[in-house]
Amino acid sequence: MQRKIEVCLTPALLDLYTIENSIVVVIDVLRATSSMVYGLDNGAEAIIPVAQVDDCLQYKDLGYLLAAERNGEVVEGYDFGNSPFSYTKEKVAGKTVVLTTTNGTKALHMARARAYQVVIGSFLNLDFLCKWLKQQDKDVLLLCAGWKDQFNLEDTLFAGAVVRELKSSFTQFDDSCVAAEDLYTLAKKDLRTYMMKSSHSHRLAALNIEEDVKFCLQLNLCHTIPIMLGDKLVPLDSN
Amino acid sequence: MQRKIEVCLTPALLDLYTIENSIVVVIDVLRATSSMVYGLDNGAEAIIPVAQVDDCLQYKDLGYLLAAERNGEVVEGYDFGNSPFSYTKEKVAGKTVVLTTTNGTKALHMARARAYQVVIGSFLNLDFLCKWLKQQDKDVLLLCAGWKDQFNLEDTLFAGAVVRELKSSFTQFDDSCVAAEDLYTLAKKDLRTYMMKSSHSHRLAALNIEEDVKFCLQLNLCHTIPIMLGDKLVPLDSN
Repeated sequence: MQRKIEVCLTPALLDLYTIENSIVVVIDVLRATSSMVYGLDNGAEAIIPVAQVDDCLQYKDLGYLLAAERNGEVVEGYDFGNSPFSYTKEKVAGKTVVLTTTNGTKALHMARARAYQVVIGSFLNLDFLCKWLKQQDKDVLLLCAGWKDQFNLEDTLFAGAVVRELKSSFTQFDDSCVAAEDLYTLAKKDLRTYMMKSSHSHRLAALNIEEDVKFCLQLNLCHTIPIMLGDKLVPLDSN
Repeated sequence: MQRKIEVCLTPALLDLYTIENSIVVVIDVLRATSSMVYGLDNGAEAIIPVAQVDDCLQYKDLGYLLAAERNGEVVEGYDFGNSPFSYTKEKVAGKTVVLTTTNGTKALHMARARAYQVVIGSFLNLDFLCKWLKQQDKDVLLLCAGWKDQFNLEDTLFAGAVVRELKSSFTQFDDSCVAAEDLYTLAKKDLRTYMMKSSHSHRLAALNIEEDVKFCLQLNLCHTIPIMLGDKLVPLDSN
């Protein structure tokens, strides 16, 4: 069977791809999609990604946890943002989280408007996600959320990790796949050190979230694939 | 002095960059910008890049050479396309060439609309270009023409080669610079073999232009920097 895998390096390029019959993996590893994976793995019932900070407010009196991040910081007045340490069992088990972030939620909504299926990837669920993707009979688009529509290293490295795992099951690749995989191969021995080269990393350092970055670069801590059903992310029932 | 260098991976992302005070290097190494460099180095008086095939026709009776390429092939009825072997001394010395190509001329026109200066890069003039860029006091944007607005390997590799040469003279880099430089470092020992991984390369192989590809991947054959003055590319007078 012919199967295609492609890497879309930023949401600004998504219109170039035909995704109506594809599974789109949304990637924003620092930190939105890592926190989504970790939160659902820790028993959150659902995560509702919304585009705007104000959109969170309509969920205020429904008993949901409200999370809002802009430019890497928790928005004033909100319980928390997108740090994975806010998505522990103690905090999210049995709860629904409404979340808006600078890049990740925007990419999610763009993908959802056209894709066959939208799922969430992060280093935390790399193997589990790849095993599932292999078993489907669909083309795959790896959508890097980037930083304000620009290319970023960390999302590209994760896309490369997925390409590396999946390529024996696919027959067609674009140039972004080749680049992402080669960059991951260069970086994988020590992702954290490689990430120090990133401009985003300098920005993150300024935000004092070094512990978050270390957490998000861990491989295979979780066995959950968040999937978009309606307006909610829920754990994919992979049985 | 603070100086910034950035890599714009496809023209579809150009709007994200502030280039009003920057030198933009347009890169379409297979084959438009290689042929432009080679043609001016071989004594062509000027190259006029035009957006549409039909735009060439208005220059028909002016004694200009007309060149048109679409999807890698010479457009029917035109003298030649963008193969560098059409830009030899015998063919172009003293002449003006009107040229339209799938990706390169589009990127040129987009850059020209806003940039402080637009120059042309290819492996053929790598060192000569880098020496000149170092001596300017402007920020630099390396604009990859890509393939129909998508990322491609060959233009990114060339951008990486430039970053590698220039980085000691600059203080700010974006993530695309890091990626491009690392990919070039991986590929530089044998650019042709690395390029075999590229989807574009497969397409080019189908066009039977292997000799063109080899030619365009040669380093430092030329000592000319094409610069956009008005609607024409002319050799920069670097004295």
